[in-house]
Amino acid sequence: PSSPSGLVQAAREAINKAVSKRDSKTSVLAIDEDMRDVCYYYSQLGTEERSDFLIHMATVFSTNHMAVEQLIQQKPQVDIDGNKMEAQRLRWEDRLRQAIQPTYHWIFSQISRLSGGVKFLVDMRQDLLTTLYTKSSDIFLAAALKTMDSTLRELLSLWFTVGLLNVQRITWESPCNMLQKVSEYEAVHPVRNWTDLKRRVGLYRRCFIFTHSCMPNEPLVVLHIFLTSEISCSMAKILKTSRTPSLDESSMKKDCEDPSLINTAIFYSITSTQKGLKGIELGNYLIKRVVHELRAEFPHMTQFSSLSPIPLFVKWLSALLIRAERGELSIFTSDELSDLREHLGTESDSSVYERLRKLFTTNGWVEEEELVNTLQMPLMRLCAHYLYNEKLRGYALDSVANFHLKNGAMMWRINWLADRSPRGLANSCGIMVNYRYFLEDCESQSRTYLESSRIIASDTVVSLARAAAEVMKV
Amino acid sequence: PSSPSGLVQAAREAINKAVSKRDSKTSVLAIDEDMRDVCYYYSQLGTEERSDFLIHMATVFSTNHMAVEQLIQQKPQVDIDGNKMEAQRLRWEDRLRQAIQPTYHWIFSQISRLSGGVKFLVDMRQDLLTTLYTKSSDIFLAAALKTMDSTLRELLSLWFTVGLLNVQRITWESPCNMLQKVSEYEAVHPVRNWTDLKRRVGLYRRCFIFTHSCMPNEPLVVLHIFLTSEISCSMAKILKTSRTPSLDESSMKKDCEDPSLINTAIFYSITSTQKGLKGIELGNYLIKRVVHELRAEFPHMTQFSSLSPIPLFVKWLSALLIRAERGELSIFTSDELSDLREHLGTESDSSVYERLRKLFTTNGWVEEEELVNTLQMPLMRLCAHYLYNEKLRGYALDSVANFHLKNGAMMWRINWLADRSPRGLANSCGIMVNYRYFLEDCESQSRTYLESSRIIASDTVVSLARAAAEVMKV
Amino acid sequence: PSSPSGLVQAAREAINKAVSKRDSKTSVLAIDEDMRDVCYYYSQLGTEERSDFLIHMATVFSTNHMAVEQLIQQKPQVDIDGNKMEAQRLRWEDRLRQAIQPTYHWIFSQISRLSGGVKFLVDMRQDLLTTLYTKSSDIFLAAALKTMDSTLRELLSLWFTVGLLNVQRITWESPCNMLQKVSEYEAVHPVRNWTDLKRRVGLYRRCFIFTHSCMPNEPLVVLHIFLTSEISCSMAKILKTSRTPSLDESSMKKDCEDPSLINTAIFYSITSTQKGLKGIELGNYLIKRVVHELRAEFPHMTQFSSLSPIPLFVKWLSALLIRAERGELSIFTSDELSDLREHLGTESDSSVYERLRKLFTTNGWVEEEELVNTLQMPLMRLCAHYLYNEKLRGYALDSVANFHLKNGAMMWRINWLADRSPRGLANSCGIMVNYRYFLEDCESQSRTYLESSRIIASDTVVSLARAAAEVMKV
Amino acid sequence: PSSPSGLVQAAREAINKAVSKRDSKTSVLAIDEDMRDVCYYYSQLGTEERSDFLIHMATVFSTNHMAVEQLIQQKPQVDIDGNKMEAQRLRWEDRLRQAIQPTYHWIFSQISRLSGGVKFLVDMRQDLLTTLYTKSSDIFLAAALKTMDSTLRELLSLWFTVGLLNVQRITWESPCNMLQKVSEYEAVHPVRNWTDLKRRVGLYRRCFIFTHSCMPNEPLVVLHIFLTSEISCSMAKILKTSRTPSLDESSMKKDCEDPSLINTAIFYSITSTQKGLKGIELGNYLIKRVVHELRAEFPHMTQFSSLSPIPLFVKWLSALLIRAERGELSIFTSDELSDLREHLGTESDSSVYERLRKLFTTNGWVEEEELVNTLQMPLMRLCAHYLYNEKLRGYALDSVANFHLKNGAMMWRINWLADRSPRGLANSCGIMVNYRYFLEDCESQSRTYLESSRIIASDTVVSLARAAAEVMKV
Repeated sequence: PSSPSGLVQAAREAINKAVSKRDSKTSVLAIDEDMRDVCYYYSQLGTEERSDFLIHMATVFSTNHMAVEQLIQQKPQVDIDGNKMEAQRLRWEDRLRQAIQPTYHWIFSQISRLSGGVKFLVDMRQDLLTTLYTKSSDIFLAAALKTMDSTLRELLSLWFTVGLLNVQRITWESPCNMLQKVSEYEAVHPVRNWTDLKRRVGLYRRCFIFTHSCMPNEPLVVLHIFLTSEISCSMAKILKTSRTPSLDESSMKKDCEDPSLINTAIFYSITSTQKGLKGIELGNYLIKRVVHELRAEFPHMTQFSSLSPIPLFVKWLSALLIRAERGELSIFTSDELSDLREHLGTESDSSVYERLRKLFTTNGWVEEEELVNTLQMPLMRLCAHYLYNEKLRGYALDSVANFHLKNGAMMWRINWLADRSPRGLANSCGIMVNYRYFLEDCESQSRTYLESSRIIASDTVVSLARAAAEVMKV
Repeated sequence: PSSPSGLVQAAREAINKAVSKRDSKTSVLAIDEDMRDVCYYYSQLGTEERSDFLIHMATVFSTNHMAVEQLIQQKPQVDIDGNKMEAQRLRWEDRLRQAIQPTYHWIFSQISRLSGGVKFLVDMRQDLLTTLYTKSSDIFLAAALKTMDSTLRELLSLWFTVGLLNVQRITWESPCNMLQKVSEYEAVHPVRNWTDLKRRVGLYRRCFIFTHSCMPNEPLVVLHIFLTSEISCSMAKILKTSRTPSLDESSMKKDCEDPSLINTAIFYSITSTQKGLKGIELGNYLIKRVVHELRAEFPHMTQFSSLSPIPLFVKWLSALLIRAERGELSIFTSDELSDLREHLGTESDSSVYERLRKLFTTNGWVEEEELVNTLQMPLMRLCAHYLYNEKLRGYALDSVANFHLKNGAMMWRINWLADRSPRGLANSCGIMVNYRYFLEDCESQSRTYLESSRIIASDTVVSLARAAAEVMKV
Repeated sequence: PSSPSGLVQAAREAINKAVSKRDSKTSVLAIDEDMRDVCYYYSQLGTEERSDFLIHMATVFSTNHMAVEQLIQQKPQVDIDGNKMEAQRLRWEDRLRQAIQPTYHWIFSQISRLSGGVKFLVDMRQDLLTTLYTKSSDIFLAAALKTMDSTLRELLSLWFTVGLLNVQRITWESPCNMLQKVSEYEAVHPVRNWTDLKRRVGLYRRCFIFTHSCMPNEPLVVLHIFLTSEISCSMAKILKTSRTPSLDESSMKKDCEDPSLINTAIFYSITSTQKGLKGIELGNYLIKRVVHELRAEFPHMTQFSSLSPIPLFVKWLSALLIRAERGELSIFTSDELSDLREHLGTESDSSVYERLRKLFTTNGWVEEEELVNTLQMPLMRLCAHYLYNEKLRGYALDSVANFHLKNGAMMWRINWLADRSPRGLANSCGIMVNYRYFLEDCESQSRTYLESSRIIASDTVVSLARAAAEVMKV
Repeated sequence: PSSPSGLVQAAREAINKAVSKRDSKTSVLAIDEDMRDVCYYYSQLGTEERSDFLIHMATVFSTNHMAVEQLIQQKPQVDIDGNKMEAQRLRWEDRLRQAIQPTYHWIFSQISRLSGGVKFLVDMRQDLLTTLYTKSSDIFLAAALKTMDSTLRELLSLWFTVGLLNVQRITWESPCNMLQKVSEYEAVHPVRNWTDLKRRVGLYRRCFIFTHSCMPNEPLVVLHIFLTSEISCSMAKILKTSRTPSLDESSMKKDCEDPSLINTAIFYSITSTQKGLKGIELGNYLIKRVVHELRAEFPHMTQFSSLSPIPLFVKWLSALLIRAERGELSIFTSDELSDLREHLGTESDSSVYERLRKLFTTNGWVEEEELVNTLQMPLMRLCAHYLYNEKLRGYALDSVANFHLKNGAMMWRINWLADRSPRGLANSCGIMVNYRYFLEDCESQSRTYLESSRIIASDTVVSLARAAAEVMKV
């Protein structure tokens, strides 16, 4: 590529210097110094320069192919049998194992020794994933970067082992900087202001995070829970209910939860914050730990369920509408079509599809009661189809569904207009879904899903999905 | 081996079951269950059974040789050049890297995910090192176990990275269980009782430990320091001085240190407590961190030095005395010999050597003033020779010397009768040595020692060592 | 008054019940129960009802006058001299001391035993002060309430002793609820939003609070400090400066303060939050402790000063303008008057005064540069006069001045347009004043002020004040 | 007394200086300085000197008698009626209340403001109680010191209010200095060594302390509890049982308590550590709080009981034996007497009493099985008599009994040879007693005892006591 900037140059020199000491008898402290320089220079780089540097690492500090070749030549012959031979083979394998390990494996290990080093590697992997994405067209670079990524991911998965993760509950008494981060990381249902935030960590709510011993001020996963007495079918209550104490309650008594009103936990938001930890499962562990904590606090808690978004339903639906417009398949019954024509004020079926596609790019339709009623049945049906029947490599196409099903949850209920926020309408026409956790069955259901890729769903969901298939078949 | 006990059998079955799920699509939580069983059964086993089980792991769950062979056969041909070829090679190397990784690498990673898992692996490695030692005669088993040990050590060195270690100061206000452990782990100068312990964490003393985020109640390294105004030449003051407040001091004022009396830190005991972490350097990092803390607390601190034991000096000396008795070399000057004959009440030179050897197995000689005076010069000289000239693979034979020299310390002063405890007399005729840390020079001295294996010592030590060589040459 | 509500009735009955047990042999736990009821019912009362209840307490549970009278009758005769007589007198005094203690002294002590009891008493005293204010016209009630107030204040001053107060630094890492309170209590320079708050506890800022062991989540006094290199003459820099790191600084390095830029601490806001602690000095102790902390952190800190508001200057000025309008005194030189006539567009002097009074009720004038320039000298002069010469019972009339002067500070500098906020302009035409703390002189200056009520001020302030007196004399 | 030492002189001068500033306008900080000096000098004094100083305080800084006299002369006349008159009276009472307050009341308040001041006052009161005891013969001094003591006790009782006390559980993880204090303060069943201490805070044990916010490292009250499944009748199990895990338990699993074995809490030691807090009840509050904690931890806990010593039973018994020897009353039945003659190897009844008295000064008798059997019935009976019938000012003579009965406990069971330690045998022939807490009845039983001084005891105890009375009547 073009001549690198001074900083890239400095970063490269620092890393070359560090690597050159690898096999000399230099003290580890000296190598630490060099690695600290590498990190410093790297952190100064811009996006493009980082890509350059990562490509440098992935290509220059990959496996020494020659060394591998030579070792393969030296493979001990298997003519003499017995222990001696076996021992020889083990030692040869040992050497091969060392040789085939790319140099950057050693580099990553060294960086991890620095204070803040593991966090640096997490952030570096985020850059690496970006680079990988932008360079995917170059077949060689793609392979080299991919190898480096899998090396780094494996190392990270060793460090981000559950034993080093701490579950923490976040309340209004938690440090302000943590609450600020919890607020900023919330992507599913954005936090509007501090009052909103205070409510989300207040009464009838729980907010748990995972932190890592290496980076105690950084929430890795954030899980928001609503405590109630029935499986929520809408966000409205969750984000707005304030359960003000009734008049005859004492103003002296601190406001507090009434445990008798609580037997259900609704996971209404789960966010993994570190892109650099992609592919390393933490969310499932957090849910597991949190269920444990909740049951300890509320021994009578019996129902656990998510209230989850369907991020790409409208996108999928739009594509479907186009195909329907082209006559490739039918998605409404004729009664529905006639109703839609009426409410949309159009004569032709094909313009129904077109109108609907446009309609779903705006939020206005949700105010038209009759249209909403007309759409409810077909959209719920199509959504069930999308969630239950659409697959990717055998598993649920919808990533949220796939996450919960892998955890052993059941696809429980599809909820009409559960999220009327602009985001909710734009993504899924406001539809949300409950994935319900039956604790005793999670283990076996998870296995069923993973092994046979069969989705376990409630009768209601299955009926809806079947109805959709019926209509589409016709 | 003989038919294994029920528990070994159960442990084997559990591990087999876990491994069988490796490539199936089982949820990680299910594998966790199996691994928990493995740990449970293993922890129930006796020493011999553990060896059996570890051998089972090292042999059955090693690298799949066939798979490696096959992959090597499939090596892509290098006839076509270019990116495509390179990418192919990278992918092939990836597969080989996977294949050559022993199964137990995956097992260890899985165990690390359990709560308490990393500590389990540390303890398991201790068993592994024992097994390795007892089975070293079987060439195949030795190779298999060694390969497993290096795999485990590499993983442990990833987890016991400095970023996950916490320096903690131990005082009389620390939790009692920690103080008990600090007391029990102290091997260099055993703690006599709780009063003794209280003094060692009290005024003019510092005690620092490293703990790991995974096992916060377990001191991994313990470092004891004495704060004073000169480089200590004896343990007497360190273990006994109590600096009682003078009479005119207020009884209201809490006893406290007078910072003006402190400009020197004596590291008089450093202990690594986990045998399972053998080969993973932590002590040097702790010293570095502690120096940092001390300089923050005492900005005027200028001198840092150890006061260290010489664990095997008497053992080495005894061998030397035998050789001298046989006339293979001379170790005393003729004047010294004549004095020794007199004080030992013997006529012949050869019986001097024999008498001395017996003498050093007891502690009584230290009470005979004249004998002590006569021995001082020759023993100091020989000790300097032992420390400065005797090498193992190029480095100092004495492991304590090697540790401090690697850290960049200087061999500063040899101290006569510095440790009059039975242990001190038995190990090194009571001689101790200061390794002094000149902070600005540590880096370069460490490098010098590691690269050229040259020992940096003070003039006094070098003169003593030269004198010894002189005498021995004759 | 009108028949009390059910709750007042309940509160009265509870307190009567508790008092009735006072001399019976009831266990303390039983009395605790009753007192808890008293607190509960009281907390339910409205403002008017609380007044009723407090009057009930102050009158019904005051000193038993009859008992006092009787004891006075029983005073031992002083005819016999000697020890026996003295002992008798001491015992009689003891009894009188008991008798003259009002019953509510015992009630308050009992309430303090409850969890949350001391906080309850603080809040109750706030109500008591309100009641005292509204009932001041009734000579008997006023006396009764005042006696109860002084009893309560004395008890509170015992509990709010410095030994039970904790200094805490508030940062962005502090619990969110504390930061919220710090924000809400800030009265001098209101916090606009969370970004503003974050800055006030951020770089080059310190925020310290006093909490009490009884109510650890309640800041009693809040002190805000700005760290800089000169004595600030305006709020602008304090509330807005953000010292963004320059471009060439590392993005890796955490933003941090440069200690070399810090040698001055500006106390720019001090707030006592509990009205119920009126008359119990805490602020001076907090300043003293904070100076101590700052000097420990910044050994080279040499300058300590407040930047303080003058809350009632405009109010005082308006009264002055009226008197000037009436011709009772002159406050401007004739040159100034002529300039003012010009800038205010009026012909007569008397309308100048009127115009100015109206002007100072709005904030617009501060934008008219020429007017501002014309006003600067006379207003600064008058302000110096107000601060330096105007007295109340011998001490400075301005309460902020009185607070700092009692602490031993010097009236250092008057600053023109130092606070351009609406509040600052409305209160003091934007003028602020520095009270400077010369640590070595505080003790003696405090004594001078307290004993001779002489205000210690810088030459500049004194000159301004003299100039004002000069003009007004004419 | 003789001329006081220089330190006493210095202490007196410091206190005179401080008091002289009382009504001047000196800043509080200046008075703090003086008071700090007072404390410093006082702390340097010996026992005798402290007495001198306390007498100085009690006499010189007592109430100003003249001022009181004068005020009494000025009592407003009651001829005019109405509000004005009432207000006048209130103000006069106010002045009298101020005047009659001794100067040392103000001194104590000032000292409390110092850091460590409250603890200083606690310790000073201990000295004061000692002085009071040694000077009790001087009628005037006794009265003066007593007045000062009651002033100080009242102040201390305000500070040692429950709201400022913290319950803390002590475990082996608690700070070592706290455990050391818990060990040293244990007076009832002295701690033998650290292993013993570890057990007392270990499994099936609880140890709770009260600390005060002013002195967080000082246990004020220590309460030891044994967790079991029946009301313990002996110390043996409590101090020795180790409940080692059975063989088939996992060595991996941390030793832990089996909650199903726990439904009873035995309070087997409660110690108030601060003599200076005599007369301020804390122990009952600690028991109440601890019961609360235990029920939260063990919802199925149903039985609460003490296992208490009877410190002065043998002393009382000896006096009784003397009277019996003199023939003043009979304490054994004739059968018992004849048995005792036999076992003690004596012919005459009177020498039986003498022998027994001697016997109970040693511990040997407890090894003679037959004698022990013979003594059991009469000693149990006499002990019941001692506890149930012997009174002091209407309440139980035995102070331990009085403490528990005031708390509302029931005298439940007398246990033969429950404490075989030398101390236990010497104090009470090894007899111990259970005071049982029926939580629902505590309140009413406490009231019954306090109001009617009736002791509530189980039928067994009452029968024993009656039997004793029967025998003694004859």
